[in-house]
Parts: sequence; C-alpha cells; structure tokens
Amino acid sequence: MKQIDLMKELHVPSDKKIIMLVMDGLGGVPGAGGKTELEAAHTPNMDRLCRDSICGLSTPISPGITPGSGPGHLGLFGYDPLEYQIGRGVLEALGIGLVLTPKSLAARGNFCTLDPATGVITDRRAGRIPTQKCTELVEKLSPIKLDGVEVIVRPVQDYRFALILEGEGLEDGLSETDPQRTGLKPLQVKPLHPGAKKSAKLLNQWIEKAFAVLKGESPANGCTLRGIAKDPGLTSYREVYGLKACAIATYPMYKGLARLVGMDVLDAGTTISSEMKTLKDNWNTYDFFFFHVKKTDSSGEDGNFDAKVKVIEEVDAIIPEIMGLKPNVLVITGDHSTPSVQKSHSWHELPVLFHADNILADAVSEFGERPCMSGGLGHIRHVDLMPLAMAHADKLTKYGA
Amino acid sequence: MKQIDLMKELHVPSDKKIIMLVMDGLGGVPGAGGKTELEAAHTPNMDRLCRDSICGLSTPISPGITPGSGPGHLGLFGYDPLEYQIGRGVLEALGIGLVLTPKSLAARGNFCTLDPATGVITDRRAGRIPTQKCTELVEKLSPIKLDGVEVIVRPVQDYRFALILEGEGLEDGLSETDPQRTGLKPLQVKPLHPGAKKSAKLLNQWIEKAFAVLKGESPANGCTLRGIAKDPGLTSYREVYGLKACAIATYPMYKGLARLVGMDVLDAGTTISSEMKTLKDNWNTYDFFFFHVKKTDSSGEDGNFDAKVKVIEEVDAIIPEIMGLKPNVLVITGDHSTPSVQKSHSWHELPVLFHADNILADAVSEFGERPCMSGGLGHIRHVDLMPLAMAHADKLTKYGA
Repeated sequence: MKQIDLMKELHVPSDKKIIMLVMDGLGGVPGAGGKTELEAAHTPNMDRLCRDSICGLSTPISPGITPGSGPGHLGLFGYDPLEYQIGRGVLEALGIGLVLTPKSLAARGNFCTLDPATGVITDRRAGRIPTQKCTELVEKLSPIKLDGVEVIVRPVQDYRFALILEGEGLEDGLSETDPQRTGLKPLQVKPLHPGAKKSAKLLNQWIEKAFAVLKGESPANGCTLRGIAKDPGLTSYREVYGLKACAIATYPMYKGLARLVGMDVLDAGTTISSEMKTLKDNWNTYDFFFFHVKKTDSSGEDGNFDAKVKVIEEVDAIIPEIMGLKPNVLVITGDHSTPSVQKSHSWHELPVLFHADNILADAVSEFGERPCMSGGLGHIRHVDLMPLAMAHADKLTKYGA
Repeated sequence: MKQIDLMKELHVPSDKKIIMLVMDGLGGVPGAGGKTELEAAHTPNMDRLCRDSICGLSTPISPGITPGSGPGHLGLFGYDPLEYQIGRGVLEALGIGLVLTPKSLAARGNFCTLDPATGVITDRRAGRIPTQKCTELVEKLSPIKLDGVEVIVRPVQDYRFALILEGEGLEDGLSETDPQRTGLKPLQVKPLHPGAKKSAKLLNQWIEKAFAVLKGESPANGCTLRGIAKDPGLTSYREVYGLKACAIATYPMYKGLARLVGMDVLDAGTTISSEMKTLKDNWNTYDFFFFHVKKTDSSGEDGNFDAKVKVIEEVDAIIPEIMGLKPNVLVITGDHSTPSVQKSHSWHELPVLFHADNILADAVSEFGERPCMSGGLGHIRHVDLMPLAMAHADKLTKYGA
C-alpha cells in the first residue's frame, strides 16, 4: 500500500497542531573553519530545544540525488518525489507567482537564435540575453491571441519565459520543441495521446505567430517550448491527512508548491519577522503550518557562508516565540542542502530536529549535521517526516487489528 | 524480487536453532522518572547478553504507523504487513481461539439496535451490551443452520461476536453490512466478484434468520457483519524458510497468528515459566521457536508502568535458562511499542537485541530504547529480522554467483 493511501485511510481528527519549519537549503558541508553553516551558527534556542527532541539526518529523495525545489518540497509534504512529478512548465509558472487552475497548461519557453536563411537553431539560449531584453520581447509576444483560450506569457529570467494557455479541454502529454542541439530546426509540438491534440494545435499556432513577431530580432529571433504540463492534481492535504494547512512563505515558488497540495497561502510579508507575525495571527485557524525561510538557500547559492550563518541565527531568534505558541509537533529541517562551498543545491543528508509530546528524546544537545548523525531518528527520508508528525499529533489510528 | 521469494529461493538446511523472544508491546517512552519501562527495569541478564550482541531499533510497519497485533507479528515473521493483510473477521476468530481452515469464512459481528417500526439502526453497538448479554444472544443464534455449510457463532466481547461458515466454495471479497451510521437499515452482503456469490447468499440467509431470532430483544435486536474474510493463505514457514517452527504463547490471538504461517502451536500453559518449560521440553523437536510474552502489552495498555517493568524483569530472569539451551540465534524484541504513558499501541521504534555466533557485537551494554539508538544494527524494520536470523543460523545460501 502506498504511503499516501495509508495516510488517507488512517488519519483521524485531533486538536493538536504541527509546525514544519523549513530553512531552504539548510544542510551544508564544512567550510574553511571545519564547520558547516548550521554548526558555525550560534543557535542557543535550537540547541536547547534539541534536548527535548529527537534528531537525525534526512535524505530528500534517495541517496546521492540532488533535488530541485519541487521534489525537495514534495518529499517534505509526504508525496514521494520519485512517483509524483511536477512539470517544468508548472514550476516555472509557480516561480513567478502565477496561479494555475485545472484549466491551465503551462510551458517553459526559451528564446533562441535561428539562422535567418535556413531556420535552424544556432544558439539554443539566444546568447543568454539579459532579463531586461527578455521582458521587452515578452511584451511584443503578449498581444498574440488564440481561438477559445486565454494566453498568458511572462518573462522569467535571462532567456527564459513562461507561457500559459487557459481554457477547456487542454490536456498535457506533449512533446517539446527544443531539438536539444544546434543545427536543427525547432520541432513541432506533438500530442503524445489523442486527448492532447487540441493543446498541440494551439501551441503550434502560438509558435507560428511568435516566430512572425520575433522575425528580425537579434539575437532572439525564435523560441522553443519545454516541459509543457498541467498542475499534477495531487491529492490535497485535507484529503490525505485531514489537515487544515497553510503556507507561510515569502517567495512565489514555495507559495505555489504549497498551493499544489491544497494549502491556504497566507500573506506573510517579506521578512522572517513578518512571517512570524503571520504564524501568530493565524494560529487558531489552522492545524498545520508550513513555515518557509528562503534566504538560507540564496546565501548558500551565492557561496556566502557568513550570510547563511546569519539567516540561521535569525531563525534561531524566533524559536522562543514559536515555542510560546505551544505547538504539539515542531519539525525543523530544510528541503535539501545548499552548501556555500558548492554554491548550489546538493545531495547531502540534512539535519532534522523533531520536537513533540511523547518523544523518545535522544542525547543530541546541539543542532548540526554532525551531532544529528548520532541522533535517535537515525537516517530517514523526507517522506517519513509527515507520517511521524501525524503520529506524534495523535492524528493517525492503528493499522490493522 | 520480494523478500519472501528470496527466502524461498535461498534457504538451506542447518542444525542451528533460532529463538524469537517477543515481549508484546515492549517499546515505551519515558515515564515520570525520565526512563522507559525497559530502561527502568533491572535486567542484568539481558544487559550482559547485550555485550555479545548487536542492538538497534526497529520500525514495525513504516515510520509513524501504529500496528495492530496482526500486522506487528506479520512483520516479525518476515511478511511485509503492507502487502499481506489479515481480515478483521479472521483476527476476531483467532483472538477467541477458533482454528480456521482453508474452508472457513470468518466475519466479525456487531450486535446493534434497530427501530422496530422502520428497521433503521438507532445504535450501531446496541448500547455496548456486556459480554454476558452477548453470550446469551449468541446462544440463541447458535441453532441457526444453513444448507451445505457448518455455522459457528461465538461471543467475543461486549457487543462483538464471531461468525464462521465452514464448507466448500466459500470465497471472500464481500461487502460489509454496517452502513457506518445510524438512521439507515443494515445493508445486504454483496459479492465483490462472481466467485463470492455463494458466500453472500449464505450470509444473507443467516442474517435473515438471525434477525428473526433477535426480534423482540432489547437493546440488541439486530446485528451487522464486518471484515468478512478467509485465512489469507500465507506461504508457510516451512516453505519460505525451510524451518520446522513452533509457537510458545499463552493467548489465543498469537497462537492463531503463528498458525497462519504454519507454525505448530504448543501447549504452553499460562505463565512465563510454563512457557519456558515448553521451550525446554520441545528443544530437540524444532529449529525455530516463536516465544510470545503477552503481559508487557496488557500492562502498557492499562497504563501500569511498574507492572510492565515487572514483566520485563520476569522475562530477564529466564534468560540464563534460555542461554543454557545454547540457541544459535536469539532475537529479543516486541511486535510494537505500548508506552504506559499512552495506554495504547504506538508507532515508536522498539529495541532489538540480536545475539548469535559470528555477530558484529557493538558497544551497547544495556538493553533499552536510548542505548539501542546507537546500536550497531541501526534502524531496521521488523521484516529485516527473519532474514538476519536465517543468515546468522547458516540457513541462507549466497544470492547470485
């Protein structure tokens, strides 16, 4: 039996409340000083909390796999990321704050350079044009209309844009138009099953009109469409867990990911302290709180060890306020590791602090990668966290008699 | 390849003997004194044994899942409890000591209250009538006969009884008759596939006759049937492991579970010392011994921390006698946790002590939840125990060349 189905079958109501505090890209590897960012950070509040908690290390997907934001969060939310996949077009749309509906079909677009004479691609990324140029081109593409559907086109970054069609009968299951190497013409969108014919026809019409608009531009006189997909239609938190769940996040991508599993997305401002205020203001309304902190990841991606340490310390400073709310379960972890020394997401396991009633507290007294290696939770996977949180909040009944 | 199939393929004979000593509901969480029941118990013999053993924590089903007795034991026996499920009717029958055959179809019955005028259910549990009343009603139902099959009906507890039909061509795959809420009439049993038509017809005939008998009774003037199921037909221990296995248990449920996997059920009396005597008396006859101690669980369910500690100490006292038999493999664990502070089964991992020749002994020197957290076995699952026991008893050959 799949975990999602097990949760659907076993969940029962309780008054208890769960907070999942996610520091994006939390995990690290040692920097010059021999410590990871979390180990180097001064975190007296989380260290104290460790003593009444069980700690461990968690693998987001499976050993050695570096997750993108989508799979990392699906794992945290309890949806096996190897089974449930979110199309790139959908993630691109969520990342710029577009709200998708069941009628939306989303694609990632790449501007490219075509040889004016032959029409073959000479640069798949149009010389990596700056975002400003991308925005100007998208403005020129915006007036394109298609019969019977709404068309939304938005700049993303550099040569990337998002294209969304909105209307009845738009199915996914479509080939991409990027031939994956230069010297070939962009491909047509092909339906991979009969139900996707309408979508393919409309997208090919859009491409034809777009090429007409872009003709004469340089270097971006063409484009390709990739990852054409719909909202994957994940079973909602309400149905899987019986939870009334909300997301407290400052970045569009994470609000969008939370929306995919049916969480309410709260207005949380732009700082950790505005997020904290949102948590307090909504404490009585929900029983599950996904609290997302972005800047651990961004500073890791920048290779800025000290900045990441500071963000972790800023989170540590709100722990007393969080504990003041008396959550029944508080899980502190990240979606994946982003070691500053690697300047990118990584596959490393990342520390988990799990605090709850009826916990088998371990001997870990400091929240960090190395102390968590010998924690009582052992080595778990992200998908294990939600069942454990549900159990400790008395929200799961017995399996079998 | 499924683990069961791997075991079937790889098992080879050896003279070595395995004891699986199961303290039901062994695992706990800290009580007022900061220790679990096992940690608080004075267990010099198990502690000494730890030093020549490898220890760890085991998850019965999967993280966060609280098992019933059925799934907990299936895991210990090496049958994945998420794949192999035992119907509630079967467990109810096993729990009162009924022996099922491949011709048996077992249902759990609930007495209920019907509105005499309309026939709708007004109380799904007939006011939770006492067991004495249940027994009287079952006596009235006992004379009911059906064509071509034997009918067995037995009281269980309160409003619950067991109904078994025994005969040729009885398949399961049947709907339940409890409409799950009051204000509705009991449903008919419906076959969920054509092969179950005969069973459905007979059960509906029995219900009709039962309602005629119960008419005029108060408050239990009706009944519903749930969890209608056959023995799941698990591949036997002999076939999976090549073991001649026996069960030494004092309670019907555990004898019944052992019978489901083809173990011989020995007469073990009612106490730990009579069980010990049974083990000694049968030492030469078997090569696998499932030794079940019930009262750790019952005292946990009662919330009686001290009583659970005493049962554990009583088990500790027989360890020298067990070791005197020189078992080649001795596994000491439980089917699930039953923390006294929770007064119920729980999801917590539980300690495992694994003693054998050729063991990679770890540094654990005290048998308890927290010491086992850093044990050499790490965090395993119940289904891992049988393959490990088989391996350490030289009963598994190499996989692949």
